[in-house]
Amino acid sequence: MKAVVYKEPYTVAVEEVSDPRIEDPTDVVIKVTTSAICGSDLHMYEGRTGAESGIVFGHENMGVVVETGPGVASIQKGDRVVLPFNVACGFCRNCLAGNTGFCLTVNEGFAGGAYGYVSMGPYRGGQAEYLRVPFADFNCLKLPPGDEHEDDFALLADIFPTGYHAAELARVSPGETVCVYGAGPVGLMAAYSAVLRGASRVFVVDRQPDRLRLAGRIGATPIDYSEVDAVEQIKEQTGGEGTDKGIDAVGYQATVAEGEEQPAIVLNNLVESVRPTGMLGVVGLYVPEDPGGPSESAQKGELLFRIGRFFEKGLRMGTGQANVKAYNRQLRDMIVSGRANPSFVVSHRVPLDEAPDAYQRFDRREDGWTKVLLKPWESDGQQKKEKAAA
Amino acid sequence: MKAVVYKEPYTVAVEEVSDPRIEDPTDVVIKVTTSAICGSDLHMYEGRTGAESGIVFGHENMGVVVETGPGVASIQKGDRVVLPFNVACGFCRNCLAGNTGFCLTVNEGFAGGAYGYVSMGPYRGGQAEYLRVPFADFNCLKLPPGDEHEDDFALLADIFPTGYHAAELARVSPGETVCVYGAGPVGLMAAYSAVLRGASRVFVVDRQPDRLRLAGRIGATPIDYSEVDAVEQIKEQTGGEGTDKGIDAVGYQATVAEGEEQPAIVLNNLVESVRPTGMLGVVGLYVPEDPGGPSESAQKGELLFRIGRFFEKGLRMGTGQANVKAYNRQLRDMIVSGRANPSFVVSHRVPLDEAPDAYQRFDRREDGWTKVLLKPWESDGQQKKEKAAA
Amino acid sequence: MKAVVYKEPYTVAVEEVSDPRIEDPTDVVIKVTTSAICGSDLHMYEGRTGAESGIVFGHENMGVVVETGPGVASIQKGDRVVLPFNVACGFCRNCLAGNTGFCLTVNEGFAGGAYGYVSMGPYRGGQAEYLRVPFADFNCLKLPPGDEHEDDFALLADIFPTGYHAAELARVSPGETVCVYGAGPVGLMAAYSAVLRGASRVFVVDRQPDRLRLAGRIGATPIDYSEVDAVEQIKEQTGGEGTDKGIDAVGYQATVAEGEEQPAIVLNNLVESVRPTGMLGVVGLYVPEDPGGPSESAQKGELLFRIGRFFEKGLRMGTGQANVKAYNRQLRDMIVSGRANPSFVVSHRVPLDEAPDAYQRFDRREDGWTKVLLKPWESDGQQKKEKAAA
Amino acid sequence: MKAVVYKEPYTVAVEEVSDPRIEDPTDVVIKVTTSAICGSDLHMYEGRTGAESGIVFGHENMGVVVETGPGVASIQKGDRVVLPFNVACGFCRNCLAGNTGFCLTVNEGFAGGAYGYVSMGPYRGGQAEYLRVPFADFNCLKLPPGDEHEDDFALLADIFPTGYHAAELARVSPGETVCVYGAGPVGLMAAYSAVLRGASRVFVVDRQPDRLRLAGRIGATPIDYSEVDAVEQIKEQTGGEGTDKGIDAVGYQATVAEGEEQPAIVLNNLVESVRPTGMLGVVGLYVPEDPGGPSESAQKGELLFRIGRFFEKGLRMGTGQANVKAYNRQLRDMIVSGRANPSFVVSHRVPLDEAPDAYQRFDRREDGWTKVLLKPWESDGQQKKEKAAA
Repeated sequence: MKAVVYKEPYTVAVEEVSDPRIEDPTDVVIKVTTSAICGSDLHMYEGRTGAESGIVFGHENMGVVVETGPGVASIQKGDRVVLPFNVACGFCRNCLAGNTGFCLTVNEGFAGGAYGYVSMGPYRGGQAEYLRVPFADFNCLKLPPGDEHEDDFALLADIFPTGYHAAELARVSPGETVCVYGAGPVGLMAAYSAVLRGASRVFVVDRQPDRLRLAGRIGATPIDYSEVDAVEQIKEQTGGEGTDKGIDAVGYQATVAEGEEQPAIVLNNLVESVRPTGMLGVVGLYVPEDPGGPSESAQKGELLFRIGRFFEKGLRMGTGQANVKAYNRQLRDMIVSGRANPSFVVSHRVPLDEAPDAYQRFDRREDGWTKVLLKPWESDGQQKKEKAAA
Repeated sequence: MKAVVYKEPYTVAVEEVSDPRIEDPTDVVIKVTTSAICGSDLHMYEGRTGAESGIVFGHENMGVVVETGPGVASIQKGDRVVLPFNVACGFCRNCLAGNTGFCLTVNEGFAGGAYGYVSMGPYRGGQAEYLRVPFADFNCLKLPPGDEHEDDFALLADIFPTGYHAAELARVSPGETVCVYGAGPVGLMAAYSAVLRGASRVFVVDRQPDRLRLAGRIGATPIDYSEVDAVEQIKEQTGGEGTDKGIDAVGYQATVAEGEEQPAIVLNNLVESVRPTGMLGVVGLYVPEDPGGPSESAQKGELLFRIGRFFEKGLRMGTGQANVKAYNRQLRDMIVSGRANPSFVVSHRVPLDEAPDAYQRFDRREDGWTKVLLKPWESDGQQKKEKAAA
Repeated sequence: MKAVVYKEPYTVAVEEVSDPRIEDPTDVVIKVTTSAICGSDLHMYEGRTGAESGIVFGHENMGVVVETGPGVASIQKGDRVVLPFNVACGFCRNCLAGNTGFCLTVNEGFAGGAYGYVSMGPYRGGQAEYLRVPFADFNCLKLPPGDEHEDDFALLADIFPTGYHAAELARVSPGETVCVYGAGPVGLMAAYSAVLRGASRVFVVDRQPDRLRLAGRIGATPIDYSEVDAVEQIKEQTGGEGTDKGIDAVGYQATVAEGEEQPAIVLNNLVESVRPTGMLGVVGLYVPEDPGGPSESAQKGELLFRIGRFFEKGLRMGTGQANVKAYNRQLRDMIVSGRANPSFVVSHRVPLDEAPDAYQRFDRREDGWTKVLLKPWESDGQQKKEKAAA
Repeated sequence: MKAVVYKEPYTVAVEEVSDPRIEDPTDVVIKVTTSAICGSDLHMYEGRTGAESGIVFGHENMGVVVETGPGVASIQKGDRVVLPFNVACGFCRNCLAGNTGFCLTVNEGFAGGAYGYVSMGPYRGGQAEYLRVPFADFNCLKLPPGDEHEDDFALLADIFPTGYHAAELARVSPGETVCVYGAGPVGLMAAYSAVLRGASRVFVVDRQPDRLRLAGRIGATPIDYSEVDAVEQIKEQTGGEGTDKGIDAVGYQATVAEGEEQPAIVLNNLVESVRPTGMLGVVGLYVPEDPGGPSESAQKGELLFRIGRFFEKGLRMGTGQANVKAYNRQLRDMIVSGRANPSFVVSHRVPLDEAPDAYQRFDRREDGWTKVLLKPWESDGQQKKEKAAA
């Protein structure tokens, strides 16, 4: 089958690889209908986090089941399903507690597994025509048959639940004010989740006009930090207090207005932007090893954190990758009933063959390239026709 | 000053009564700008729950502070405030736990106090020109000065928080399905709260077309139980399962389609309407003494409850009057930011003098009389003008 | 193999039945080392709840794995495990929410499955030499190898988690006061759980002196309702208020002091025994059909419940069978570390052959017969020796 | 009256100061029966955090009410009460949310007030014969009359609730494993709280043998970090995983085994000591300004925090001073019922006159000087007699 294969920094190729097959009785194989490109694919693409030449990318996957193992109880051939990016067993201690992003079974010696990484277990990515799904009863979320809501559903694999996880970590509740740093796909999904949870005001901080525009479209207040001091703006608009809750959707590659990387700047700005007794949801990535970091301590994942202020204000903070399984069913139901339409964030739908080009342009953050979906079974022509019709 | 005084069943009058004054150092007196008529006022009006001739009605009050006691720290003359219908001290065990509807201080020998009742402590009602507010620092919620959002804010005294309390008791969370029995003002506010909290689908059961229309306007699915079997409808629309959560906004005066009172019918229908492991929020009133009840046990507040099914399904239930103080600030913030506009439920705004007529028509549930606000300081002419302009 | 087979009301026999075997790839078979007799076995034994002649009893099972299916990932031959009485899949909506007592997969058309019942799915009981365990990765809780804590661990299958569930439903938290109605094995476990969770005072209401003595041994205050009015006692000892929380460990077969069945008496006494804003955890069984009930409505599981008082006091209530899986790991860890020793409740350990006699004496509630463990692989002589040594 | 007055670094004196009096209608004045010396008194005593010459120390106070303002409703002359160290109003947004340590009313321009500090509002300390208590209805916790449990109750002002707060921030629940860094009075109270909440195993890390002994006495496992690597020990004893939860009861003055200050060492050790998905409760103090800090960033309260690992493990962290009012009633009830006896930590009871000497020896951490209570109304002779009798 065809798949998007990582070759070397800044190069992916669409190549023939072996078909996946049932390896364990609890596996299924799906025909991939949509697989998204994610910001963390770009980390690998840029060579910043480790990727091995030859691996297949893709952890945001959905499709239709084409084969089931004999130990699978609830999933059948023909079922349309979306898969959490985290592979999980469903029965280890962490999965039982709902922390499926930290499964102790699927990736020996580490808490947490995923498709399409080197370090997250032996699970090939889904930017391909087919994908093997382990522990299928647990990992498949069934969708209504057909192709309705395809793009919305595709976002259930990662960014919608990840944005929602940020709101959950910060325990955003009705009537609260929230600031979100970062208006990339995850930041937008976090802001959107805050809105869906009843936040009274949501501020979104970024510098890219197209992304800030999207923030405005969902009812959030955009703040362009290349033009104003974000912390001051947030305080000014909240009576000097700061927001109830804060979300970090940027992580360690944060930059100041001038473009320089300051890995702790978003975290520390959040400490100032949030009122005493507030809470931070941190889903922007921080890593224990970052060879490209701007200082020796940054390279070890140690950052100068304003813990003095954090403590004085009695703040709390939750971090880590999303436990997709904890939210994806509820979010699916919001999509089905029309309450949520997360696909407003999707800017491009391209066939598999165009993946190398899409990677390049998405990586350069070309204007308007917010979120790219790969469609392995749609031909180029079909895509173009759709775009024209839209 | 003028006030709405209860005389005898089905009769209230606007009469002169003594002006309220500061009695304790922690009191304030407010000039009432809006005071609503509530369904529980009608219980007394009809003589069904005890009311003494001569008492002033009105527990849904807001206005402007005109006098403050020397022990008041945070409230000043001129502040615009709304008061929870429950009078509470702020320092007893129940208030500390957020259960301000069950204050142990303000109504000796009973857990909970309120304005304008016989049994809820010595607090005169606010359907009058002025009102004394005890423990003012705790009981006053400050509002933006001016008269913007007046009708929305007035609903913060009772029905919006009471509807929200129902959703909180049932722990309605994003993506869930909810059924609400009763589309009176509280039921509509409960449905609206469920929507604001992110419910994916909300069903509202009633038989009055005007109320069901309002339910439809906020995105809920109306079900007319005079035309269809509500339980069956709910199951049918939820894949046979029932909703995740259920709300009782009717209480012991529930009637079947034919009009006969069956005090347990809503509760028992909820048991069937909600899926196993679900949760019920019960804010429709049940009382330990109901001399007008249809049976001896009903008169003692004992009803034939389907506890066998309730247990088999592993259901949970929360009940009781709302702890308004637990929600009113957040809901105010949603109004101020434009996220919530609860006044869609308000049908009539009348001057104090017209209260007797308004009571009569509201009590008869005349078509379109959903919720009535009294405006003690607006003249008849002014009201009419406003209506014409609207 | 040998197993305890139900024949007719008041009769069980130890008979030869077919050996269990791996039926699905995710099954394991265990050699049963301990299987307890439960109060709900007695319901069937007495013919009160439906049992079919020929079924094997036993839902409180532990043992050692002797065979594993090819789809089992984490359990190996030789592992010592204890099984929740509820059979659950681990991937349905209810299991994902932690409500494993209401699994939607294992018992078609019903929420919840268990071993050893007619109506709880096709799972033979474990009062036998061997037992098939479905969805083994999810249902097996691993124990330290050897035979230490055997009797404590056996109680992890049902009554310790069920008692704990009662405390969880009532959200018993440190410093609170709690009343527990019923000092049978589950009531004692509920009281014990309340103590472990830090309750400041626990009252246990029963009439059997041996059981009340056990309550006293774990630091609870026994109340003999055949001698005093339990509600009055509880109020008197709590400053007239009642306890913070209440637990029903009796259910629909409740009797008054004179011995007559009054199915709602415990529930209604709890309403009076608990302070306003309190919470009830109901694990004593209520059923939707009880042909032996004392009235027509009781036979349909409808009881005269004091909902008026319940509402007035703003009470909350949680019910249903325990989700064992939600607690058994934590409770196991308390046993291993010596923090918990639930086996104080065990009165008898007998070989399988003596099951008929044990059933009879336990059913009669002979003095001192609190909890019986069956030991399929220990000979009569061995048991006796142990008893002599103890 | 006599009071403990701060003079200059390392010097306090017992001097005559003006008697406190009712200043606001909601004040009371108490006769102080016990006032404890706290570790944060030592911070000021050492001149490390700002103190002005002339202020009266003492934020851990209890006593008997001798005068009440006219606006006080629930407290009467003769009531025995204990006061949270945090002064709070009871009606601001933070107090309403239970965050009484961050009151917005009592200390203008800052979230939070306390007795006996320069920066925490105009509230004189209670190491004196009398003390004024503002917002008395809210701040007084009533105690049983008499002098029983005096030393246990005194600890309700600060260290018992502060230790409990740590356990609450880390949401320690039954069966969990917990590590506590620091066996000072707060660390011991945190460990004790974890035990009371049902933790299965608690590890306490310190280097002072007398304190580690006390940890052992309450059932915790002491770890002497001057002898072993604490992180390794904790991992070894938890199967390589680390504990479920972690508590920092040390703060920014943390030292390594060799005695050198490394302000982030405890925080970073906790990140390693706790298992993925774990949670940290941080009550050891971190400050935004520490002129004596070992580096420029430390002086600004910015520390090199292992956020990379923290994120990778999906950890959460709660910080800040305790909201005493959120816990003190429940903890009082545990003391009254005999469930909790926190005074095991008290090493010395001395009359006011001996305060200067006690400060000196406690500050030097002389062996056995764990916790000192001042008894303003007991003469030297009386104290000695008591000690002899004990």
